[in-house]
Amino acid sequence: MADSLPANSVGLVTPQFARFTAPLQLDCGTALEPYELAYETYGTLNSARDNAILICPALSGDHHAAGYHPAALNKPGWWDNCIGPGKPVDTQRFFVVCVNNLGGCAGSSGPRSLNPATGQIYGPDFPLVTVRDWVESQARLADLLGIETWAAVMGGSLGGMQALQWAVDYPTRLRHAIVIAAAARLSTQNIAFNEVARHAIRSDADFHAGRYYEHGVVPARGLMLARMLGHITYLSDDVLMAKFGRELRDGKLNYGYDIEFQIESYLRYQGESFVKHFDANTYLLMTKSLDYFDPAARYGDSLKTALARTTAKFFVASFTSDWRFSPARSRDIVRAILDCNLDVSYVELESELGHDSFLLEIPQYHAALSTYFGRVTTGAARA
Amino acid sequence: MADSLPANSVGLVTPQFARFTAPLQLDCGTALEPYELAYETYGTLNSARDNAILICPALSGDHHAAGYHPAALNKPGWWDNCIGPGKPVDTQRFFVVCVNNLGGCAGSSGPRSLNPATGQIYGPDFPLVTVRDWVESQARLADLLGIETWAAVMGGSLGGMQALQWAVDYPTRLRHAIVIAAAARLSTQNIAFNEVARHAIRSDADFHAGRYYEHGVVPARGLMLARMLGHITYLSDDVLMAKFGRELRDGKLNYGYDIEFQIESYLRYQGESFVKHFDANTYLLMTKSLDYFDPAARYGDSLKTALARTTAKFFVASFTSDWRFSPARSRDIVRAILDCNLDVSYVELESELGHDSFLLEIPQYHAALSTYFGRVTTGAARA
Repeated sequence: MADSLPANSVGLVTPQFARFTAPLQLDCGTALEPYELAYETYGTLNSARDNAILICPALSGDHHAAGYHPAALNKPGWWDNCIGPGKPVDTQRFFVVCVNNLGGCAGSSGPRSLNPATGQIYGPDFPLVTVRDWVESQARLADLLGIETWAAVMGGSLGGMQALQWAVDYPTRLRHAIVIAAAARLSTQNIAFNEVARHAIRSDADFHAGRYYEHGVVPARGLMLARMLGHITYLSDDVLMAKFGRELRDGKLNYGYDIEFQIESYLRYQGESFVKHFDANTYLLMTKSLDYFDPAARYGDSLKTALARTTAKFFVASFTSDWRFSPARSRDIVRAILDCNLDVSYVELESELGHDSFLLEIPQYHAALSTYFGRVTTGAARA
Repeated sequence: MADSLPANSVGLVTPQFARFTAPLQLDCGTALEPYELAYETYGTLNSARDNAILICPALSGDHHAAGYHPAALNKPGWWDNCIGPGKPVDTQRFFVVCVNNLGGCAGSSGPRSLNPATGQIYGPDFPLVTVRDWVESQARLADLLGIETWAAVMGGSLGGMQALQWAVDYPTRLRHAIVIAAAARLSTQNIAFNEVARHAIRSDADFHAGRYYEHGVVPARGLMLARMLGHITYLSDDVLMAKFGRELRDGKLNYGYDIEFQIESYLRYQGESFVKHFDANTYLLMTKSLDYFDPAARYGDSLKTALARTTAKFFVASFTSDWRFSPARSRDIVRAILDCNLDVSYVELESELGHDSFLLEIPQYHAALSTYFGRVTTGAARA
C-alpha cells in the first residue's frame, strides 16, 4: 500500500509518545504531572545532532504534520505539502519533529485525558496552558530526543507564535525561527472573535460546564458555530467571493431558512466535519492560549527587549489578504527584530487566500521557504 | 418634562399605526393581508406636499428615529443626532417619516404578531419579506400620507439598500436617494457572517423551530451570539484596539473562562442588552432580507440597467474603516449611477469607527449631509 503513496512523501508514519514525570510548572500557577506528549518525526537526526527542525502546530493542528497513517491513506498530514523529500522542509536534509501540544485532543495530555489525581477525565479541570508552557514542554521533548539546539523552530499562525516564544525563552537553543502569518499578540478584534467562539461552545445546552463526556454528549452546535466563524476569518472576502460568489445551491431562492447560498452549505459542512474529530474543551483552551500570548508582557511591553538575548536568525512571512493576522502584525515583529540588529528575512506574499495561505502550496511562498532553508546549514557544512 | 429635552430635538413623539387591507404581494410568492405599519413623523408636510423625507431603518432600527418617547426620556431615537431642527435632516424644513419595516418587532406586522388566518402568533410562518417588499409597503404608506414624491429617501446600511431599491422600483417617486454605508448586494463574506448568526439562533435549544413564544422562552443564547458577532463586524479593528486594547477587566490574567479582557465584557453586555428588546425571528428575517438584496438581479445583473429609468439625484457616502460594507461597495453603486449619466455626489469619509460610523455624529459626515440637503429644494424654492 505504501508503494502507492506519492514519491515526495515521507510515507507511512507512526506517532510516538513520551511520558514526562517531572512536574511542569505552568503560567497559570499549577503544575502538570505526569503528562504525555504525542509527536512524530520525519527524516534522520545526523551525527552532529544539528539538523533538527521543530514544527509547531496551529490551533487545530496536531503532531501529524506529514506523511500518512495506515488508516487514512487518502489524507496526509496537515503540512504535508511543505515537509518531505525535496519539499521546502526537506526531510533528506532535516530531522523534523512535530508535537501535539498539551491541552490538545490528538494524543497528548489534554481535557480528554484522565486526570491522574482523580482517575476521572480532566474536562474543564485541565489547566489553561500557554504558549510559554508549550515551549517549555517542547524543550523537554528536545532534551529527551538529545537535541540541544534546533536548526529551526517553525510554525504558522499560533505555530509561529511558538517559534517567536522559543527565541524569547530559549534564546540560544534555536539557530533559526520561522514565523509565518503570526502576530506578537492578538488584536482586540481577534480576542473578540475568540470570545464569540467560546461563548458559542459554553452556551450550548450540551456543554454541561465542560463535563459533557460524562453525559455522553458533545456541545456539537457550539463547536460547529465556532468553526464556521473561524473559517470565515481564515479566508479573505475576495477568495470567498471567487470561490462561492452569490451562487445558489438550488439555482433559485427558496425564501426559507434552509441553505440558499453555496457558502452556507460550505460553512455547515466545515463545521460538521470539525465536530467529528475535535474536542470542544481543547478549542476553548487553544483560543485562550492565543488570547494570552504576549511575549513582550514580561519585558516591559517591549518585544525588542524580549528578543534582545537571542542569537537566532529569523524568517518572517505574511500574506497580503490575511486580515486575521495581517502583514502589519508581521511588520511589528520584523521591526522588533531589526531593532535588535538581528538577521531577518521578511516576505509579504501576494495571496488572495487569506490566513489559510500559510497551509497552502503557493509557489512563491514555498520558493521563499526553500531559499531560506538553503541558508540553514547542518553537519559538515556548518563546521 | 418635555421642557428639559434638548432644544435641537424634535421633542416628544408618538408612534402612529396604519392598517392596510389590500393584499401585499410578496417576492416569496405569498400575499400579506391585512398588515400594519408603525411609523413616526417629525416636522410638517408643506402645502406643496414636496418636503417629505423617508428614513429607512437598518437591521435593528425601527420607526423611532428621532425625539423621545415619554417612557424613555434618556434615550432618543436611533438617528436623533441627524434628524431635528438645525440638524442635517432639518425638521424645520422637512417632513420626516420613519417606518418600522414589515417583519420587525417594534409595532409593524412581524413574527410576533397574530396571524389573522389562524389567530396564532406568526412566529416562523411570517413570510420572508425582502427589500423590494418593504419599498412596496413604504409606497403604500406614502399614498396614505398623500405623498406623491419624496423629496428624499434616505438610509444607512440596510436602510441605504432600501433607498437604492426605491430608485429602481419607483424611479420618479423620489427626487433624491441618500445611500450611506450600503452595498448593491452582499459579499460572500457578509452572507457567511449572517449564516453564522442565524445558525446560532436556530441551533439554540430554546428556539423550538421558531415557536419559542408558545414555550414561554426566547433563544437568548443564540440571539446574544448573533449580536456579539454583529458588533465585531460593525466596528473596525482599529477602533476596538483604541477603545479596549488588551485591557484586562481585573488588571491581571485569571487563567479561566470568565471574562479576562474588557472587550469580552463589552460584547457580552451588548449581547445581553439586545436580547431584552429584539425578537430572534425578526433577526433571522432581517439577515435573510440582507442576503437576498440584489436590485440588479432582475435587470440582467446590471445595476446600471436597474437604475436607468430613475430621475433621482444621488448622495452616496462610505467610511474608510467600514469593512462590512467597504468603500469599494459604495464605489460600485457610484459607478452604476455615473454610467446612467445621473447626478451623484460621493464622499468617502475618514473614520476609524467602522460600519457604525453611519449612526454617529461625525462632523465631516454631518457637514456633507447638511450641504447636500441644501440642494434638496422644496415649496416655493422649487417652483
